Amino acid sequence: MSLSFHQENQKESLYIQVYQHYRDLIMEHRLPEGSRMPSLRKCAQELKLSRTTIENAYLQLAADGYIIAKAQSGYYVTGIASQEPAPDKNTARKHPDVRYDFASSGVDRESFRFDLWQRYIKSALRQNERLLSYGEPQGEEDLRQVLCEYVRQHRNISCSPDDIVISAGVQSLLHILCPLVADRKTVSFPTPSFVQGSTVFSDYGFQIHYRDKDCDIIYVSPAHMTKWGEIMPVSRRMELVHYAGTHGSLIIEDDFENEFVYLQKPTPSLYSLSGGHEVIYIGSFSRLLLPSIRLSFMVLPPSLAESYRQRASFYNQTASKAEQIALCQFIRDGHLAAQTRRLKRLYSQKTKALLQEVRKIFGTDSQIQIGAAGTSLALTLPCSFAGKDLKQKALSRGLRISILREEPGYITLLLSCSSMSEEDFAPACILLHEIVS
Amino acid sequence: MSLSFHQENQKESLYIQVYQHYRDLIMEHRLPEGSRMPSLRKCAQELKLSRTTIENAYLQLAADGYIIAKAQSGYYVTGIASQEPAPDKNTARKHPDVRYDFASSGVDRESFRFDLWQRYIKSALRQNERLLSYGEPQGEEDLRQVLCEYVRQHRNISCSPDDIVISAGVQSLLHILCPLVADRKTVSFPTPSFVQGSTVFSDYGFQIHYRDKDCDIIYVSPAHMTKWGEIMPVSRRMELVHYAGTHGSLIIEDDFENEFVYLQKPTPSLYSLSGGHEVIYIGSFSRLLLPSIRLSFMVLPPSLAESYRQRASFYNQTASKAEQIALCQFIRDGHLAAQTRRLKRLYSQKTKALLQEVRKIFGTDSQIQIGAAGTSLALTLPCSFAGKDLKQKALSRGLRISILREEPGYITLLLSCSSMSEEDFAPACILLHEIVS
Repeated sequence: MSLSFHQENQKESLYIQVYQHYRDLIMEHRLPEGSRMPSLRKCAQELKLSRTTIENAYLQLAADGYIIAKAQSGYYVTGIASQEPAPDKNTARKHPDVRYDFASSGVDRESFRFDLWQRYIKSALRQNERLLSYGEPQGEEDLRQVLCEYVRQHRNISCSPDDIVISAGVQSLLHILCPLVADRKTVSFPTPSFVQGSTVFSDYGFQIHYRDKDCDIIYVSPAHMTKWGEIMPVSRRMELVHYAGTHGSLIIEDDFENEFVYLQKPTPSLYSLSGGHEVIYIGSFSRLLLPSIRLSFMVLPPSLAESYRQRASFYNQTASKAEQIALCQFIRDGHLAAQTRRLKRLYSQKTKALLQEVRKIFGTDSQIQIGAAGTSLALTLPCSFAGKDLKQKALSRGLRISILREEPGYITLLLSCSSMSEEDFAPACILLHEIVS
Repeated sequence: MSLSFHQENQKESLYIQVYQHYRDLIMEHRLPEGSRMPSLRKCAQELKLSRTTIENAYLQLAADGYIIAKAQSGYYVTGIASQEPAPDKNTARKHPDVRYDFASSGVDRESFRFDLWQRYIKSALRQNERLLSYGEPQGEEDLRQVLCEYVRQHRNISCSPDDIVISAGVQSLLHILCPLVADRKTVSFPTPSFVQGSTVFSDYGFQIHYRDKDCDIIYVSPAHMTKWGEIMPVSRRMELVHYAGTHGSLIIEDDFENEFVYLQKPTPSLYSLSGGHEVIYIGSFSRLLLPSIRLSFMVLPPSLAESYRQRASFYNQTASKAEQIALCQFIRDGHLAAQTRRLKRLYSQKTKALLQEVRKIFGTDSQIQIGAAGTSLALTLPCSFAGKDLKQKALSRGLRISILREEPGYITLLLSCSSMSEEDFAPACILLHEIVS
């Protein structure tokens, strides 16, 4: 094996290098589906690395679906490389014959009051004078005031509107944040699946680690730990804040889908637990309003807010001014709170209904994983098809599915109820059952 | 002097280091207004650098208004550090008592048909189904098709919609572009004044040079070479493309305000002159529609378009989907072309009228610089006030002005007519004349 791993880097980074090496081999089909991975011992010998390093890399590969363990036999390459790339967010539009879509990241068409939003946009567009000038780099002042009050009420975050930066989505926030924290070198993400986040950090030269609390920066989504909605328990939140505090790490708290935590309370924000020190809080509206509205914000801790202010004028605002004005008034009039209550009720009821339907139709043969939040569940089924074929077969019958993992004889699907209507759950599950059998 | 300049860098970068060093001293008031700069010889000796390097730095400092030359005496620090920071884009709103605004970057309130745009946004907001999903990372496909046709017609650029990337403003485009060209190290800007551009490149670790055609990347705005609308002549366009081609440099052509080139034709795009090789074309709509609408696009040459496609899914779209849908139909229905014609006529007439008024009122004592494009002219006047005081005095009488340069006994103002109405030119110029006298 002609590999050179940078030994000077620390242990965590070595295992990620091994992980990435094998991930690339698998994705490029150079390690074909079904082939056996070298044993831990052999691999460690060849790469001149410790067995633990290799084992960590293999565990991560398995966690991300690239390989699977067979008892007393070793690790085998899954069919992941033959699957379609990232779930296409527009497929529903491109395949007009899709009847049931378990794979969409869109929102429920019943959930959003278009007429209401139209009214607010229309009213924002009437503010001619204000629209004739560029937006404030930091975001419109009135919206920052409203957001300041919003996070105080809902997340117990006490800050000033001057600490808030508005942008068109989380990536745009990170483009402002990364240069501010350029003195740090390493950043840890919970999983390799949040590519949009890790790409930005890696573009700026940060080293990306996974689940490594000894990094300079720790990126977490406490209300979205897994795709099936597991949330971070309060005890772990406190632990994390304490650990980061004593080690001088910076936490980035991406509060994605916190509004959809149904079953558990309270879920204090890391920002509030830390007392506002060394935690950056990120909030978004794509799940509450429309995915197509690009509006996110971050709350900077005092030290970073100060450095930001010195650079604020170097960055243009990316979010639409009209949408900022509309959102500001929309929140003031209480519609965001009402919309959150409505969605929470809707998605809680829908995930429960989907769970019941799945239990009824797939019975005891299946295994279901479901968290305390979100709009999805993970379903593991006996299945003799390769994931790729199953996906194709389902699509040809008007059903879109997303595959989370493949093991020999078993397949794990991620079923999202977010863009489907409730009466479709039963026929969609029956159809899926037919296809898998 | 306790300075260490990185001698290993090349000549250009040395002079910029000297430039930045003195700029900082001046802006921090450590070299106070009116103080004499060390002589070239003395400074070269102390810094152990060549006289040419120092001279280049001083020339750049003078060009940017930090110091001024007095014949047979040397260079003196101007009052620039005591001026207000960057011209505040929202000042008109913050000073409601401003009657005449020569300093605004906003657009003419008569220029934009709000009712029409409202209709297109409203119609876009009716496309419920489409707004329920995330936008395409590269930008909406129908808008890319329309833009492809638009640049073919107007800039003789032949490309495919797949080569076009849409984003919320030029900075967001650069955030996608910089990682794609990370194998390059140096980038040249025409002046230090486009901070938003140089900040992004510098955040990604590029070395920033000025007016240096030997850089790996050359950023130019051919239709906006100076703030008073000078444009790049065709001969220099051809020269630049040829030079870049033979030296393997990449050109970024920011076509800002190309629509407002009144007096000269043709102004072929660098992209078309290069035959689509190694030129990235950037277009924006903030001057044609509203500054508050964040929509820009770039045309990538084939090699970069290919690398982009491999990374496209790593970046989320930043521009509002509703505004993309609205713009697409707005262009299809011919309104952008009509709006461009209307604005070109309007601004051409307004700059001409302003020029006449300024000539009439300030007479032969003044010197006027005006280019072939844009909405501004530079006016040099005899003046005994410091720039800061003049600005304050003007503001107290309801007149906002922007100062470009100060020399002893003279001041140069940048007068923008873009957001003022024509009947205000005469009273505004008379008021300015009173204040300066």
